[in-house]
Amino acid sequence: VGQRENRPGEFELIERYFRPMAGRAGLGLRDDVALLSPDAGFELAVTVDAIVEGFDFLPDDPPEAIAAKALRVNLSDLAAKGAAPFAYLLALGLPDTWTEAFIARFAAGLAKDQGLFGIDLIGGDMGRSGERLTVTITAFGRVPTGALVTRDGAEIGDTILVTGTIGDAALGLRLRKAGATDADGEDARHLLGRLRYPRPRVELAPVLRRYATAAIDVSDGLVADLAALCDSSGVSAEVDVERVPLSPAAARAVDADAGRLEPILTGGEDYEILFTAASGDAEAAMAEASAMGISCAAIGTIVEGADGPTFLRAGTPMSFRRPGHDHFRP
Amino acid sequence: VGQRENRPGEFELIERYFRPMAGRAGLGLRDDVALLSPDAGFELAVTVDAIVEGFDFLPDDPPEAIAAKALRVNLSDLAAKGAAPFAYLLALGLPDTWTEAFIARFAAGLAKDQGLFGIDLIGGDMGRSGERLTVTITAFGRVPTGALVTRDGAEIGDTILVTGTIGDAALGLRLRKAGATDADGEDARHLLGRLRYPRPRVELAPVLRRYATAAIDVSDGLVADLAALCDSSGVSAEVDVERVPLSPAAARAVDADAGRLEPILTGGEDYEILFTAASGDAEAAMAEASAMGISCAAIGTIVEGADGPTFLRAGTPMSFRRPGHDHFRP
Repeated sequence: VGQRENRPGEFELIERYFRPMAGRAGLGLRDDVALLSPDAGFELAVTVDAIVEGFDFLPDDPPEAIAAKALRVNLSDLAAKGAAPFAYLLALGLPDTWTEAFIARFAAGLAKDQGLFGIDLIGGDMGRSGERLTVTITAFGRVPTGALVTRDGAEIGDTILVTGTIGDAALGLRLRKAGATDADGEDARHLLGRLRYPRPRVELAPVLRRYATAAIDVSDGLVADLAALCDSSGVSAEVDVERVPLSPAAARAVDADAGRLEPILTGGEDYEILFTAASGDAEAAMAEASAMGISCAAIGTIVEGADGPTFLRAGTPMSFRRPGHDHFRP
Repeated sequence: VGQRENRPGEFELIERYFRPMAGRAGLGLRDDVALLSPDAGFELAVTVDAIVEGFDFLPDDPPEAIAAKALRVNLSDLAAKGAAPFAYLLALGLPDTWTEAFIARFAAGLAKDQGLFGIDLIGGDMGRSGERLTVTITAFGRVPTGALVTRDGAEIGDTILVTGTIGDAALGLRLRKAGATDADGEDARHLLGRLRYPRPRVELAPVLRRYATAAIDVSDGLVADLAALCDSSGVSAEVDVERVPLSPAAARAVDADAGRLEPILTGGEDYEILFTAASGDAEAAMAEASAMGISCAAIGTIVEGADGPTFLRAGTPMSFRRPGHDHFRP
């Protein structure tokens, strides 16, 4: 307790760790609000996501990784909508056991990501949360007026595309729960890394604005997120499971145990982008993504229907015991 | 446990309780972001505040009051800056023990406040929080370009003004901790009501834009918030404690025990507005506030100095054992 009473207060923490990160719109974190002055011709996309200890990350995750994840899940939402992130608010709920060393590393993780993604902290809130660290981020992106990419524009005949690789985070989560660490070899390191450090596809935003008829980031799992996109668009989909892109580590996991295909397709937290494009645009979209260093695969087609997407494996529809990663009822 | 498994999922909760409240910018809560299209000539003021069970409200507070408080502490921040609130995002962390009945009442409380303040829900996040209900709200306000009222413009000779009455919430909190209820008479009802249902002074925003040289809402206590305003402005202040407006209930509490004056001046959560105006404008500011039904009192003067405000009682400076209500280290 004596040691805890020596911890700095809210104002000292802001001064030491967060004020140096503040962008101009944050008024130096010296006032009660941030002030956004959108440029003519642009709209603001805004999203909020909270991550909570024990649910969205584990207590012994590195502080830098917790910071990165809190931020990146929000940047992924903006990217999927064709918006370019520029600022964020941080609401930090500190558990009774917080230490200044933790905050220093957490802030360093945020600072590094600010540089990486070209964004600024513009405000926030800090308070006590009792048992669990809670990090709530509100992120802001710019999008040219009228150009937001929604979920509801997919049309029959559109090609379904997805960036990167699918299922790594879900396999990483299973490893994590089984007690695996980075020391368990290269595949484990890759899969755990994908779980801890999502890579929001912010560079893809202009490509999506140009070609996507609908888009969503893959946070609840490919199956659930494609279902959500189809539901919003009033269409259905057929996916060729063999064309879903897997990392070498995930492919080896499926080779070892074909049962892993279900968590790969239904597990959450890939933070890749799933989008649809007119079939005539699919090649150009893939080429432009590739030119930005983002691999992009065509995995299926939008079809008529209201029954939800079909995932075909060697021509046979798969059925899933648990079609979605539900953050709410794990 | 059986009963818990019958609780609705995230999507059903959104559909039943939150979608009906969604404003146009919220895209029907059917996408991953909200889309704000600021009008030409306006900037956006944005603020975030979290309230956590056991710290900012108590587990047996009415759900409607928890909802109102979460929203209103944010609206108060906007009002103090001269901004007119129009929308908010809700990040809801539900404890393991949540019930649908709680959510229904919580949502009803939000819906009522939306009507009262003319604002819309435009997005959010819902997830599990473990032990404590956590409500994080990001609120958006409009302010004419260049008209934001900051903390840092107070000038020597300015009059210091404050709306409403000070200290009721602090006295309410003491009653609450001592186990008092609304049944303990009219004064208890008044003081507990002020604690549970802050009244953000949103109508005052245009008056502040016209007359205030600096402003802050009184959330950490009159003493601490005036100190923050003075610190930002590079000035000091002299306050005549006899002119600090008290409700009849608070005045009776001080008559009964003069020691109550300290928590009245240093206790938090008044959510009144403290502002400064050129001495020649003070009368007009008070008259315009009064015309809007908001009482407003001149309590002191901005003076030169860097040592923090002086609170004079019968001409003698008061000293406080605990000058600020620290949400962070209660």
